[in-house]
Amino acid sequence: MEPLDQHSSKGELTRRRIIAEAAPVFNRQGYAGASMQDIMAATGLEKGGLYRHFSSKEELAVESFRYALAQSVKLRTHDLEHVEGAIAKLRCIVDRFIGTPSAVPGGCPLMNTAIDADDGNPALRRLAREGIEDWKKRIAAIVDRGRRTGEISREAVPRQVANTIVATLEGALMISRIEASRQALQDAAASLNVFLDALAPAARPAKKRAR
Amino acid sequence: MEPLDQHSSKGELTRRRIIAEAAPVFNRQGYAGASMQDIMAATGLEKGGLYRHFSSKEELAVESFRYALAQSVKLRTHDLEHVEGAIAKLRCIVDRFIGTPSAVPGGCPLMNTAIDADDGNPALRRLAREGIEDWKKRIAAIVDRGRRTGEISREAVPRQVANTIVATLEGALMISRIEASRQALQDAAASLNVFLDALAPAARPAKKRAR
Repeated sequence: MEPLDQHSSKGELTRRRIIAEAAPVFNRQGYAGASMQDIMAATGLEKGGLYRHFSSKEELAVESFRYALAQSVKLRTHDLEHVEGAIAKLRCIVDRFIGTPSAVPGGCPLMNTAIDADDGNPALRRLAREGIEDWKKRIAAIVDRGRRTGEISREAVPRQVANTIVATLEGALMISRIEASRQALQDAAASLNVFLDALAPAARPAKKRAR
Repeated sequence: MEPLDQHSSKGELTRRRIIAEAAPVFNRQGYAGASMQDIMAATGLEKGGLYRHFSSKEELAVESFRYALAQSVKLRTHDLEHVEGAIAKLRCIVDRFIGTPSAVPGGCPLMNTAIDADDGNPALRRLAREGIEDWKKRIAAIVDRGRRTGEISREAVPRQVANTIVATLEGALMISRIEASRQALQDAAASLNVFLDALAPAARPAKKRAR
């Protein structure tokens, strides 16, 4: 959320409080699964109070998802400029995800919304797609810079590295949640670290042996 | 589904048809998102007709998930005994998933149910957990046999290999669906093939260099 400025009113404050309190409900239960009753219980407001601030359940769901996504992106990628080196930056992205996979209760909002909105809500689907694109672009840009400085082999494909990191982390989170155990996240991180090591130019020749 | 035997009645046939027709609805929309109206539309039966065969929406959802899962497992792991070699078997599992990620319309039933039932339906959650465990056990058993025959390095950890393959494939499927593109699946498969190559004993020393 943006910091409050001088134009923020009491209404705006209430609107932001509703979003922050509704976000975990939508994140846990999905757009269809979260009822207005659930939102009323989480926010302590009557239906009329909610509709004074949001024109529809869909608008509230979209704003809640934007909020959850912003919290996650912040947690996953902030302050990376202080980490030296492309591979160390990528390693940091993996470590942070494993350490704190969910900024808002209910798991990764991207995964939840991608699955939930897949065949349903088009506004949420578009936001989830943009969120994944944005995350992948940040990773691909790090790989690209690493290739230009020579830290990462020219053979590494930034888009492939980004897809692999995001897929492995999100899939491991899914397994971890259903198993109620961190094992899958730890195993995925160990495999991703081997994968990241192999991005260095010195590591590439070993990969190119005949099968 | 089991083949019909002499005890199968018309009722049993109808029950099986309902399950097969309800499965894509639950898989696409989730347990909470699929209404009895949606199920009625998909099966062409009235509510009374459905409740003659299933005591509750939950029972129908559970049976539909069992059906979708059985179809997926069949597609992903059948006939693997005809593939020679542990790494070739693992490669085949990856290739099949990339080639036909979804046996029942709506994506991988494991992922959908894992996310959907995560904070909701306990019976579906248990089935999803068992489905993931079963898939991982099949992969870990292949790695274990490969270690015993010497095809796979003793340093490879079967559970870690299984978590990595399942996580990467499921995560890539999630990205592919939200992007409406096969790119993430193809990128994940390329990275998994490098990972599988590195399981061979000859490939291991290159991984153990000092960082």
